[in-house]
Amino acid sequence: MRIITLTTDFGLEDWFVGTMKGVILSINPSATIADISHGIQAGDIRAGAFALAASYRLFPKGTVHLAVVDPGVGSKRKMIAVRTKNYFFVGPDNGLLSWALARESVQAVHRLENKRFFLPNVSTTFHGRDIFAPVAAHLSKGVPIGKLGPPVSNYKALPPREPTRRGGQIVGEIIYIDRFGNAITNIGHACLSQECSTCRQFKVVIGNRILPLADFYEAVPKGKPVAVVGSTGHLEIAINGGSAAERLALEVGGVVTILHES
Amino acid sequence: MRIITLTTDFGLEDWFVGTMKGVILSINPSATIADISHGIQAGDIRAGAFALAASYRLFPKGTVHLAVVDPGVGSKRKMIAVRTKNYFFVGPDNGLLSWALARESVQAVHRLENKRFFLPNVSTTFHGRDIFAPVAAHLSKGVPIGKLGPPVSNYKALPPREPTRRGGQIVGEIIYIDRFGNAITNIGHACLSQECSTCRQFKVVIGNRILPLADFYEAVPKGKPVAVVGSTGHLEIAINGGSAAERLALEVGGVVTILHES
Amino acid sequence: MRIITLTTDFGLEDWFVGTMKGVILSINPSATIADISHGIQAGDIRAGAFALAASYRLFPKGTVHLAVVDPGVGSKRKMIAVRTKNYFFVGPDNGLLSWALARESVQAVHRLENKRFFLPNVSTTFHGRDIFAPVAAHLSKGVPIGKLGPPVSNYKALPPREPTRRGGQIVGEIIYIDRFGNAITNIGHACLSQECSTCRQFKVVIGNRILPLADFYEAVPKGKPVAVVGSTGHLEIAINGGSAAERLALEVGGVVTILHES
Repeated sequence: MRIITLTTDFGLEDWFVGTMKGVILSINPSATIADISHGIQAGDIRAGAFALAASYRLFPKGTVHLAVVDPGVGSKRKMIAVRTKNYFFVGPDNGLLSWALARESVQAVHRLENKRFFLPNVSTTFHGRDIFAPVAAHLSKGVPIGKLGPPVSNYKALPPREPTRRGGQIVGEIIYIDRFGNAITNIGHACLSQECSTCRQFKVVIGNRILPLADFYEAVPKGKPVAVVGSTGHLEIAINGGSAAERLALEVGGVVTILHES
Repeated sequence: MRIITLTTDFGLEDWFVGTMKGVILSINPSATIADISHGIQAGDIRAGAFALAASYRLFPKGTVHLAVVDPGVGSKRKMIAVRTKNYFFVGPDNGLLSWALARESVQAVHRLENKRFFLPNVSTTFHGRDIFAPVAAHLSKGVPIGKLGPPVSNYKALPPREPTRRGGQIVGEIIYIDRFGNAITNIGHACLSQECSTCRQFKVVIGNRILPLADFYEAVPKGKPVAVVGSTGHLEIAINGGSAAERLALEVGGVVTILHES
Repeated sequence: MRIITLTTDFGLEDWFVGTMKGVILSINPSATIADISHGIQAGDIRAGAFALAASYRLFPKGTVHLAVVDPGVGSKRKMIAVRTKNYFFVGPDNGLLSWALARESVQAVHRLENKRFFLPNVSTTFHGRDIFAPVAAHLSKGVPIGKLGPPVSNYKALPPREPTRRGGQIVGEIIYIDRFGNAITNIGHACLSQECSTCRQFKVVIGNRILPLADFYEAVPKGKPVAVVGSTGHLEIAINGGSAAERLALEVGGVVTILHES
């Protein structure tokens, strides 16, 4: 229980993440801190939720996952710690943790209220440093989650972005664009095989283009668009050797339709 | 004494920070290295000094703080290591360490001259790797600071940027703009309460705008500007859910005036 | 053998590097992971090869250097692990490792084929997470390289970019531009001294400019261009206090000529 991961929108230009690490190491000098991402767009709770859900399971059991994308910092929004069968999660109760928790067996959810586990002086604008980091560090040292505050029966969940089915088609949308310009959709691998387990031919329609579904980027010539089931298990739109987001003018929320032939 | 922090303007695009970590781990394989920031604007000694001063105290006692914003690298500028009551600091003697040291009880300042603690081949352009990193690593292993070079009686200090008082007003300036576009001023919390401990109403004038002083960003509606005392203890200008620097065209050096009513 | 370095083009905006760290820590919780760079331009094998070659030797003996700039991921390109006298290297066999290996005494090269050392489910688009990270983690735990797959007799090498000599001149080219806008050339220190060990005067011609060769950036007035032998041992074009790449419109591939007078 000594690994702590960090997922935030604090960026790496300033000292914000550095001070969180200082707080953690002051409380648990033997913690191993691993950055998942600090490049979440400022205040984009969905992007943070997606990054965390795509990553947390790669870490060893017992890892404490600390996530802070918290546009409501300082207001009345709640803060929680969650124990699942395999992990701990700490963050604001604004849906940020919910896509990861939806895949986990949740055992306990507690509000963060016990100031004994906060920094002595809590600012109104940086709870990442003053509350979430010390709480995560204490959890990593074995403090029982029940000491952090009262149990609550649920947590705020982002609406799932499930694709819909219409007349033999799957209709989904783009939910994340990565640094390579690949557009990740909400259409998962399971959804494809459930739709048509015997299909050998899926076609992906985006705008006025029809793309092949291939196994890897280089299955199409350089500069050509292609759909693949990417490393998160989701269908994504890519261009071999280029940025699909840029070249096809793709944006989060854009509609993606799957046609299939048996 | 095994944590070493890094604050530099080397960025993360290239291998510069990576090689500093290699040097440190070669000398002290059990060092824990924590990045404060590598995103300081190239050569901006004041921004580096501010980041270090805002961060160093969050780390445990005994931490070695290594900072390199060093436009004079290779010239005759001096290099120093400093022992304070709680920490060590290593860097060029160009003022970079001075805002942190101003808050500390300084016990010893030594010039870095003993080549035994440098890399065998010292380049003229990358003392971060060849001098500062090995010196910090040796300090973290317990080498006494006196072995690094002769003691000196002082170090170069940046002029403090203190706000001034004029006829019941506080006049300060913007000293740092963070990734969120928040403009941090030199007006500290202590200054505000000293000016008017009984005041319930401060107003912040910036350009032709008058902003309310609130407790947190969301105290104003989305898209509205607000002043808060931020996580560094300094007054900062923000926009709820947006970038104040962009929307209000704020820059480092811009004047900020505080009015108060009893 | 517990330090693992990472050199990739995955960037830090997304969760890619974070998941690699999760995989490594799941296999070897006591590994120390050090980032060399994740800012390599997407798919730029030469830039990655240069960053790795400039960095790997600063790490302690036994370090496992993991590098992933892998535009051919999922295609038939090969993957290798290499044991040299002092280090291990893991990556795609596309030339990425070759500039580092050219300076090392190579003892064994093995193809990565033994799926026992991969993640159970290997995606077609993220072998950094699914193959290279677990292989590096197993190597760091002492798994013999011979277990990873069959030995091979060679690896793909990038053509060296050696400068040429023409009539008392050295003609080289720019091979990397760093975050400061310094343009690093393929002209090494050894090349200069070999050309003219007694020379006191080298002049560097770039476009229609002739620059002095100096010992450090500040040897010329602020804003003036200068050539120095930089921290990688290569001649680089810089501007004191500015970006040479921007101000002199320098690009990778640009020609640099050295004149000398005895």
